Order: sequence, then C-alpha cells, then structure tokens
Amino acid sequence: MSTDAVGPLLVVSAHAGDFVWRAAGAIALAAERGDRAKVVCLSYGERGESARAWREGKGLEEIKALRRAEAEAAAAELGAEIEFLDAGDYPLLETPELVDRLVRIYREFEPSVVLTHTLADPYNGDHPAAARMAMQARVLAQAIGYDAPGEPLGAPPVFFFEPHQPEQCEFKPDVLLDITPVFERKRKAMECLPAQVHMWEYYTDLAKRRGVQLKRNAGPNLGLPHETMAEAYVRVYPQTTGVLA
Amino acid sequence: MSTDAVGPLLVVSAHAGDFVWRAAGAIALAAERGDRAKVVCLSYGERGESARAWREGKGLEEIKALRRAEAEAAAAELGAEIEFLDAGDYPLLETPELVDRLVRIYREFEPSVVLTHTLADPYNGDHPAAARMAMQARVLAQAIGYDAPGEPLGAPPVFFFEPHQPEQCEFKPDVLLDITPVFERKRKAMECLPAQVHMWEYYTDLAKRRGVQLKRNAGPNLGLPHETMAEAYVRVYPQTTGVLA
Amino acid sequence: MSTDAVGPLLVVSAHAGDFVWRAAGAIALAAERGDRAKVVCLSYGERGESARAWREGKGLEEIKALRRAEAEAAAAELGAEIEFLDAGDYPLLETPELVDRLVRIYREFEPSVVLTHTLADPYNGDHPAAARMAMQARVLAQAIGYDAPGEPLGAPPVFFFEPHQPEQCEFKPDVLLDITPVFERKRKAMECLPAQVHMWEYYTDLAKRRGVQLKRNAGPNLGLPHETMAEAYVRVYPQTTGVLA
Amino acid sequence: MSTDAVGPLLVVSAHAGDFVWRAAGAIALAAERGDRAKVVCLSYGERGESARAWREGKGLEEIKALRRAEAEAAAAELGAEIEFLDAGDYPLLETPELVDRLVRIYREFEPSVVLTHTLADPYNGDHPAAARMAMQARVLAQAIGYDAPGEPLGAPPVFFFEPHQPEQCEFKPDVLLDITPVFERKRKAMECLPAQVHMWEYYTDLAKRRGVQLKRNAGPNLGLPHETMAEAYVRVYPQTTGVLA
Amino acid sequence: MSTDAVGPLLVVSAHAGDFVWRAAGAIALAAERGDRAKVVCLSYGERGESARAWREGKGLEEIKALRRAEAEAAAAELGAEIEFLDAGDYPLLETPELVDRLVRIYREFEPSVVLTHTLADPYNGDHPAAARMAMQARVLAQAIGYDAPGEPLGAPPVFFFEPHQPEQCEFKPDVLLDITPVFERKRKAMECLPAQVHMWEYYTDLAKRRGVQLKRNAGPNLGLPHETMAEAYVRVYPQTTGVLA
Amino acid sequence: MSTDAVGPLLVVSAHAGDFVWRAAGAIALAAERGDRAKVVCLSYGERGESARAWREGKGLEEIKALRRAEAEAAAAELGAEIEFLDAGDYPLLETPELVDRLVRIYREFEPSVVLTHTLADPYNGDHPAAARMAMQARVLAQAIGYDAPGEPLGAPPVFFFEPHQPEQCEFKPDVLLDITPVFERKRKAMECLPAQVHMWEYYTDLAKRRGVQLKRNAGPNLGLPHETMAEAYVRVYPQTTGVLA
Repeated sequence: MSTDAVGPLLVVSAHAGDFVWRAAGAIALAAERGDRAKVVCLSYGERGESARAWREGKGLEEIKALRRAEAEAAAAELGAEIEFLDAGDYPLLETPELVDRLVRIYREFEPSVVLTHTLADPYNGDHPAAARMAMQARVLAQAIGYDAPGEPLGAPPVFFFEPHQPEQCEFKPDVLLDITPVFERKRKAMECLPAQVHMWEYYTDLAKRRGVQLKRNAGPNLGLPHETMAEAYVRVYPQTTGVLA
Repeated sequence: MSTDAVGPLLVVSAHAGDFVWRAAGAIALAAERGDRAKVVCLSYGERGESARAWREGKGLEEIKALRRAEAEAAAAELGAEIEFLDAGDYPLLETPELVDRLVRIYREFEPSVVLTHTLADPYNGDHPAAARMAMQARVLAQAIGYDAPGEPLGAPPVFFFEPHQPEQCEFKPDVLLDITPVFERKRKAMECLPAQVHMWEYYTDLAKRRGVQLKRNAGPNLGLPHETMAEAYVRVYPQTTGVLA
Repeated sequence: MSTDAVGPLLVVSAHAGDFVWRAAGAIALAAERGDRAKVVCLSYGERGESARAWREGKGLEEIKALRRAEAEAAAAELGAEIEFLDAGDYPLLETPELVDRLVRIYREFEPSVVLTHTLADPYNGDHPAAARMAMQARVLAQAIGYDAPGEPLGAPPVFFFEPHQPEQCEFKPDVLLDITPVFERKRKAMECLPAQVHMWEYYTDLAKRRGVQLKRNAGPNLGLPHETMAEAYVRVYPQTTGVLA
Repeated sequence: MSTDAVGPLLVVSAHAGDFVWRAAGAIALAAERGDRAKVVCLSYGERGESARAWREGKGLEEIKALRRAEAEAAAAELGAEIEFLDAGDYPLLETPELVDRLVRIYREFEPSVVLTHTLADPYNGDHPAAARMAMQARVLAQAIGYDAPGEPLGAPPVFFFEPHQPEQCEFKPDVLLDITPVFERKRKAMECLPAQVHMWEYYTDLAKRRGVQLKRNAGPNLGLPHETMAEAYVRVYPQTTGVLA
Repeated sequence: MSTDAVGPLLVVSAHAGDFVWRAAGAIALAAERGDRAKVVCLSYGERGESARAWREGKGLEEIKALRRAEAEAAAAELGAEIEFLDAGDYPLLETPELVDRLVRIYREFEPSVVLTHTLADPYNGDHPAAARMAMQARVLAQAIGYDAPGEPLGAPPVFFFEPHQPEQCEFKPDVLLDITPVFERKRKAMECLPAQVHMWEYYTDLAKRRGVQLKRNAGPNLGLPHETMAEAYVRVYPQTTGVLA
Repeated sequence: MSTDAVGPLLVVSAHAGDFVWRAAGAIALAAERGDRAKVVCLSYGERGESARAWREGKGLEEIKALRRAEAEAAAAELGAEIEFLDAGDYPLLETPELVDRLVRIYREFEPSVVLTHTLADPYNGDHPAAARMAMQARVLAQAIGYDAPGEPLGAPPVFFFEPHQPEQCEFKPDVLLDITPVFERKRKAMECLPAQVHMWEYYTDLAKRRGVQLKRNAGPNLGLPHETMAEAYVRVYPQTTGVLA
C-alpha cells in the first residue's frame, strides 16, 4: 500500500457525526500518511441527529456543545482538524453566504482531495444540501475572478462517502478503500459518540462487508488478510492517471 | 508518472483494427513500462470494417490477409503480441467454443488488466458481442472447476475503451489516461492502417480533445504540457485501493 | 379487497384541482374504509391552471374563490377534508416558512400514507416544487428536535400520483390501485370542476387504460370485472412487509 | 403480520446454494403460512460455486452429489420441495429446451409468486441467464397456445432476490421482507452448507443490516423488535392492490 | 403537413397484428404520401397472440391461416405490402438465418425509415427479439462485405413503436406523430382483426391520449383540431437535420 | 436543406461567450433563413469565464465591458440581436425577479425555438441554473394568468446545446445539426473572442467530429460533403410532426 503523501484532505459534512461513520478510515489513512486532514461540519446535527439528547430533555445549546465535544474527540482520534460552521440543521439551508464560507476554506486549505455526501438522499435533505454546497464552492474557488483571499483552487477530485441506505441514494460504489491498517482508529473514533452505540456495530459490520467486496474485486491472488475492512466511495469526476490499473 | 510494472495487459477486440484507434496508448504505455501486452482479435473485420478493400474488388481471403498484416504491423509498433481467432465478423457469433478459447487465453496469459469494447453499441453489434464474451470468459477463468489448463484467474480490472460515438453507447468516461509520452507510437501504429487515412486525423483530434479534458479534471496546478494527449476509458468494477486520490 | 383501516391519508397538491384527476380514487377508497383523508392545496392554481376563467375576464380573487369552491365540492364528494395554504402559484415558491407549515400539518394529522406529485415535470415547475416540500417536511417532522407541536412523525410511505404526461416525468408505475368500487365517486368529484369538461373524459379513459394494465399484471385468474378502473402510483420508499405477494 | 396463505412460491435458482443465502427467509415464511414452496436449481453450481471441493481434489460427479445433498438438507429445513435440472454451470447455457422444462414446471406448479436472480450481475453470468429463462418461461406458460400440459399460467408477481454485490447489479430494493419469525430456520438452512462457513456470518450480518433499514422505512411507531431481520427484494411488475399502504 | 415523399417505410413486427395497433397511422401516412410501405411479420403470433382461437379449439395451421388473412386485410386497408417469414412465436428464436433473411429484405427494399418494437418488454420476449434482429440486420445490410444481393444499405432512421405498457418497457416517447388525417384508415385496419374487439377501443383511446399530448407539446397556437389523433415513437439514432425545429 | 422560415430563435446563455462556442451554427442558420435570432446573456461571465483578463489585472467593470463588446461583435457576425441581463456570475443566483425578466422576454419575443444549457454540469453550476430559469420562465410565460405584458406563449421546442464535457453532463445528442453552410460565420464569431484562441481550434475540431457523426447517422447515400460540420443538441420535449423521417 502506498504511503506517499497525497496532499490535504477536506471532508465537508452536514452534521457533526457524519464523518465518523462514513469517512473515518480515509481520514485516518491520510493522517497516517502525513497528509493534513480537515473536517468541516456545516451543523452540529443538533435537531435532526440528536434524538436521544432531546428525549433526555436537554436544551438546544447544550446539545450543540455535546455534539461538538464528541466530534472534536473523534477528529482528534483520527488525527484531523475540525471546524464547525454552525449553520443549523433540519433543515440545513443553502445560502450564498454559507457557500462563500466554504469557498474561503477551499482557498485557504487547498485540498488535494474532497469528501462529501451523495447528491441524493430521500431520508435526509441536509446531506444533499451539504453536497451541493461543497460541489458549488469547489467550482467557485477555482475561478480567479471570485472575490476571496488566496490562489484559485486546482481541481481536487471529489468522492461521495457512503449513505445509510446506499441503494436508495443512487450510491453505486466505484472505489473500495482498504482501511484495514487504521480500522482500530476508526473504531475508537466511533466510540467517541456514545449516544449511538448501535451504530458502532452497524458500521463495523459494514466495513467487513465492504472488505469482503474489496477482496472479491481485488482478486484472491493479492493475499489480502482474512478480515479486510473497507469503506466505499463514489468518484465524481473522471480519474486522471498515467497508468491503467 | 509511474513507471512501475503493473502486470500483463490483455486487449480483446472484435476486429483487427479496433485496438489501434481505441487503446493504442494504453498498450504502448504498458510496453514502455516493461509489461507484456497482448491483443486478441476475434475476427479480422473482413466483412464489416474493410469497405475500401471490397470496393477495390478484393476477395475474402485476400482481405483477411491484408487486415492481419496491418494489425501485426500496428501491434509490433506498439510492442504488443497479437493473436487472431478468425471467428468471423458481421456478425461475430457468440458461441461457447469461442468463449472457451478466451478462457484458455486468460488462464495462460494471466492478465493483470483487461481492455475491451462497451456493452452497448447500436452501430455495430460485433463490439458488444466481443465485450460480452470477454467479460464472460474472465469470470469462467476464475473458477477452479472450469475445465481448462492453468491456475484460476484472479480478478483483473476491466476497462471499456472508447467507441466511435460515445454518447450513443452509454460511454461515460471515468478514467482519462495520459498518453502524451507514447502518442507518437500511437500515431505510427495508426499509420499502419493505410485504408483509413481519415481516421488518423480523427483519432488524433480525439486524443487532443480527451487531453484537454484530462487537464481540466487534473487541475491547472499539475503543470501538464499544453498538448496533453489522452484516451478515455470506463472502469467496469470498483477500483480497489489503499489511497483515495 | 381489504376493507381494514390503514390510517390517515394525506395528499399534498400544488394546485386546487390536482388531487381530483390524479388521486381521487385513493382518497375515496380511504374514506370508504373509514380512514381520515385530508388534502392540502398549496395554492389554488389561480394563475397556472385557470386559463378559462382568465379568458372570461375574471379577477384574481374571484378566480381563487372559484377554484376553492370547486375543490371543496370535490373533496366533499370524496369524503375528504381540505385545507388551502394559498401560497401562490406560477411559480409556487419553495420557502422555509411553507415547509414549516407542512411540518406542522404532518405533526398534527399524523398520516399513515402520503400522496404527492412526481419530482420531475418539465411541463409544470410547481408540481416538483410541491413534491420536494412534501418530502422535506415529512423528514423534518420525524425529528424530535424540530421545533413544532406534536409528536415526531413515523415513516409513512409516500406515493407519487400520475402526472399528465407520465413518460416525460420519469413516472414508471409500480403500484396499480383498483378504484372500481369508487369510480363513480371519482367521476362525480371530477364533475365538480366544470371548467375542464374535456378532462372528465380524459381521466375516465386513463382509469380504463390503467385498469386494463392492472388486469394484465394481476393475471386473468383473479376474475376482475371487465371494466376495472385503476390509478397508477410510484412508491418512493421500499415497501416493508411480512409477506411477499 | 399476515398469516393468510398466498399460494405456491416458486424459486428459480442458477446454482444449488443460491436460494439459501438469498431467499431462505421468504421460503420459510411461505412454508410456515402453509403455502407450498418449491426450489428449482438449474445446476448444482458444481464448477463455479464449489471451489473448496475442487481444491480438495473431489471429482465432478462427487461434487454434484455433495451439492445436491446439501441443498436438499437446506430445503428440508425450510419446508420446501426441491428439484434439480442439472443443466450445467459456468456457463449455464440458455437453450429452448431448458426454457421449455421451466414452462412445464410453471404449468404444473402454478405458482402465485416467483423469486429469481437479478438480470444484471457482472460477477456471475449464470445468475442473469437463470433470471432471463425464469422470466421468459413465465411468459410462455401464460399462453394457451404454448404446447405444454396444464392450464395457462396467471400472472404471478416476480421478485429478484439480493445478489452478492447489490449496487453493481442494479439492485435497488423496493421490498424489505421481515424474516424475524423464521430467521433461526434460515440460519439452520445456511448451516447445511458447511463448505461456506464464512457465508453464515456474512448473510446473518446482511439480514441485520436489511432489518435496520426495514425499521427505518417502517417507522419507529410500529414497535418492531430491536433485532429485526430482513431480506431485500426488487419487484419486477407493478403491484396490483386495492389498498395503498 | 408535409406531403413530400420520404422514401420506403419498412415495419418489422414480431407477430401478425402488432403493426396494426402500434404503427398503422405511420403506415397509412406513408401510403397516402405515395411512399411504399412494407410490413414484415416474423411470425403469425399463432401461439402467443391468438388466445381466442385456441379457446375455440382451432388447430395450429388454421390459426396461422386466420392470422395471415387478417393481417393481409389490414395491410391492404393501409396501402401496405406484407410478407410473412413464419419463424414461429412464443418463443420467437433469434437465429443467424432469420437475421440473414432480414438483411436480404433490407437490401432489396432499401427502406428510408424503419419501425420496430422496443428493446425491452417484460411482458413479451418476442418483441425485443424482433427488435434486436431488425437492428442487427440493418447494420449488417450496411456492410459491403456482407454476402447478400444488392447494394449496401444507407442509414435509415429507426423508430420504436409503442408497446402495450409503455412505462414498463422504458418507452419514453420523443416523437408524436399526427395521424388525424388517416385515423379512419387505422380504425378500419383494426376492424380487420375481429378477435380483439376490445383493442379497437383501447387503441382509439390511446390515439386520443397521444393526440392531447401532441397538442400540448405543439402549443395551442398551431390551431390543431380538437380531436387530434397521434401515435408515439422513440427515435433510436440522432436526428440529422439542417433546421432546428 | 430547408430554407423556409421557422420563426424566432431565442438563446438563453449563462455567460457572454457560451452561445458562440455551442450554438453559433444554429443562430447563423436561423439568420440566413430570415428568422430573427436573439441571444440573452444572463451574465457577462465576468468572474468565472474571464481568467485571462483577471490575470492581466483588469478590474470588474472593465472585464464586463470587454466581454460585452466581444459578445456583441460575435452576435453581429452571426446576424443575431443580443441582450445582457447583468445578473452576475459565479454564482449566477436563481431569483424570482430574474425568472420574471425572462418571462417578459418570452412574451415579447415569442420564440418558435429555444436553446439553452444542459440541466446537469458538474463543472459549472451557472449553466444548469440558467437552464432551469430558461425552462421555468417558458412554462410561466405560457400561462394567461401570469402577470406580464403580451399574449401567452405557445410551446416552443427547447434544445440543450453541447457542454464542454458532454458525457459528464448527461448530454446524449439526439439532434445533429448540419452547419456546413454557415461554419465560416461561426468561425468568425469565435474569432471575436480573442482571449480564448485555443477554443477556436477546439470547437472547430468538435464541429468536424460531430460532422463525421452526422454523416454516419445520415447514411452515405445522402452525398454529404467530405467536411461536413455539425453541432449536437438534445431535444427536451417530444418532437411533434406529421412525417416520420
């Protein structure tokens, strides 16, 4: 497995926990390679993804603080920076101002790779809203005429990470990422989110399932370990390469 | 650009000339890397792709010999082996026997990468027929229980090369391959097919067009040369990797 | 045919007449089963679907009153409640406020089934706008953290009713609903809309056509009546069931 | 959950084991309801799905007998009849004769529901071949003019069961079947296939995963058990019904 | 409406009656323009589309003669030639010999326009089989090297005519053909098929429905008659034109 | 080639240069036929499509003036009127006000044909935004109840012109327009945009490529010139016609 640096990894996530379940492996791999990794949470998921806290009678600000602390702990576990834009969820509203904030982050962070949600998700409108803004801001940041500090962005590839019900979200994986070397870190990051214990098993099972598929697609001759763990991604733009493999 | 060997490259082509227009860059890159490259032509394209020879009044065997000689010359220019199965074209009939011959080639050649036609082509039924057989034989060759010499095949990735009218063939490129370093060899290989002079320009223009797109997708910061040349491919199975990039 | 109650039926419609042509059968069936049925009209269709009244020189408020009276009569015929949000049409603008009104209706009405427009309609932008809002509000109403009265909503299935030109709206029916027992009520409801006499025949013919298809898909052995009448629907979320049938 | 009889269930499967991993829940539910259930295995999977036996040096007839015995045991566990057509696998060839055998089975068994593979599977050509034949034979059996014993078939609904890599097979579930009451029988049926121990866990995990999705789609208010187990299906023809739910 | 001749129209139909319900309008328009029109029926529909005759106890040859006589009468009504290849139906088998017969018809008839079935039809496998052969033969006939009498064919556009359940057959109309001037001839041709009286009304209603859509897409300003009748088609290859309209 | 007038042609373009690269041929053909042609530029492309001017240090107003002058020169070369709405780009914001301005243009210009961008473009969000507004305004302008001067619009057909990376934008051409007679005017119009010299060749090559495809689809028998030049379009609504050809 390559250990060469690739460049900074930017993850744009609708809610505070999304990056942990869906992309923690990719983040930990980047960090282990020595690449910067940064998570931008557009909201804390305070209304839509904090059912347990609401049922326990907590208040809005308390919940936001809680989700923030959990996400910070998970990011630290993975070796990533994290920034919260606190734009509100359920619904996460698309506004030119929020897109502009993302443009400025692109210009300043200069990612080499971008991860975000799928553009379709009939179970959660915030996810596509985040993806649309992440995609739009990336294009705007490429334009020298866009009025924001920094140099025009290059064309970092974008990958969609896996939604909860992939087939309903038009998610057809075209990249299976081997996260075996960092799975323990992903597990520990998941354990930073104690309100969703059932998700720990669910996403461990999913990593096994995607690992079985990775081995099937890689072929038996590669000698991958029995318990290969993987994350699935969809590549948005054509891959550019000098080698077909 | 990587120059590490990848392993043997197998190209399954319906007619004698297809591999030149559509995949010569990938073949030449493999050869330059030191990888074996082999082209299997299921037919000579003697009926369907030799209009000029027929108009000149040549006979069937003469045309087959002509197409064979041209294709051998082009393969030699690219550094590839070539084998002709002479299964007839227009139509290229799908038979268990022909699929079995392909299985034996897979088992013996042990490709690490496979290139073939798209599964849809409303302009030429031989192309999808070749692709279906290439795909089926690859799966059969993987089964230890399939009765043919050699070890079970691994799971080499498959790429579709570009058809003449890509949009009509559901061809949405997801890999753009930089063939700039070997474009001169591709051009010379094309010039081994003198009956189709107009195609030399057509596919040179296409390589430029795909090169412009490659630069657009790679981003300006990579400092690619002004005249980047490229070939477009569709990846059939999910990419398996240890690095998202 | 089952006559067990299913639970409340909510229909979210862009304009005042839509529910009559497209979903009157489902509404009447619900009412006959003893289920509550409620229609929410986001607008009166006063600008976009009242050509005849405009040609007759009527004014805006007069047209709105007219459309309202017709829709009330049709709803009464079907045994349904009806509510008008008067949000304006042509265009029907998507706003957080209008979505919030729908959330409150979901929370209060607690539907077991939801009907709305398709997400694509190149002939009428109000229809997809209504569908997007109906879908989004349903998700928001499920979140305990969403600030609106009432309990969090369950996960009522959503069905798209049939648009005027189904194939152009990506409408591929996956449910054919037998409305034979209530077709007379549908017809009477249609006749409450006297400005569109030609539509009475058009949607009667459509019900016959969908009925023929229902019989074809149900099989001849079921002994359905010669003149089976049907409405077509698209199911949005996977059906959950204990019996495959 | 309904316990009314639905009518005979027919499962058409390419290889001997397919019905266990993919449809055992549906079969056991049918048997528990008192419906006849019958599995037709077009082949034993002797070449393509018996890698371990081949590696152990077993011969072709021995392997076929082995797979037959396993499948019979699994069917017995589920309460299903089973028939083997021994048509050969890898490749499973589509022939008019094999289709005719299926027509005769349809005519004699008179299924009310049919289960089979998806029409796309880039990992295994036998699966789509089986599905195409199952679909074609069903249509032929409906024609009074088709020369085979028995009455013309009705129009039993067809469901595709879940392939190994669903997204790569265009498998978008539209029915989630609650198999919690019979999951133990499915597990025992899986344990009748000792050569594939790793699959026991894999398909237990999958049932949990589909169960989580079933609960998500059914809504929290239904009070489903914590460990709901499910199988996913794709419905091929429109559902015909008297009730939208 | 243009009355300029277009050139010969070829209709390739699986069964004897298909061309009447689905394409009689296009055929009659061609004949009225003075263009030759020819229908090729691959089978008589003797097994799959003659339920009533079988129920009446007629024999195979009798049914074939009956269907032939009906189709000849309908073709005569429309002003078309008709040829029967008697290749058998249910199933209509795809063979190189049958394709070759079609190639020879293309070469001899030199059509300017070709009509056939859709490539998908889950209700009737003969329809896609006929379409695949019609498409393949057209391509083969274009090759000078294909061994059949006559000159190589040009590239006549191909249109799919409307199947019974359009949405289930991926039929998204992109051409609406105004058949008002010849609808009476279509009706009379339908009345040549007395065993299917219910189809007369069904396809009259369909023509009205497509006519309403034609008027909607053409715009009110064209002054089309109230009862515009239409047939729907799907264009297979890009339209080539000197005028966008 | 027809030279009859078709009626006014309206082109709705996101940025000042788009209409030149993508639709100049259609515009020049309209003008040569004697039809009015009008280009509406929603923005000047001042931020997103003026990289060179920004790198040269020009200011915003200067760049807008520059782009305006270039576009006016190109429109004059083609014989078209041009109007600039100066709504800003990168991002081009969708607002009810901007849509209303377009409605008024539709009502006043009464186009018979409309050209605009594709609805998908992952490289440039302004293009789909322009297309959505052009489509929505066309529908609004059809409603007599929409409050704007002029008569209700008919139903002019809409065509999408070709984006830079067609396959990535779901652009499957279904009309190939022969622009050979006016290609020189297109070339001169392109030369009015001196900042993008490399585009002159790129779009000349594209016209050749689409021309080769046009000849392939039209058939060799039409005697088209060797260097046929073409533009590709996607037709949005069904074609309505009295002749299949």
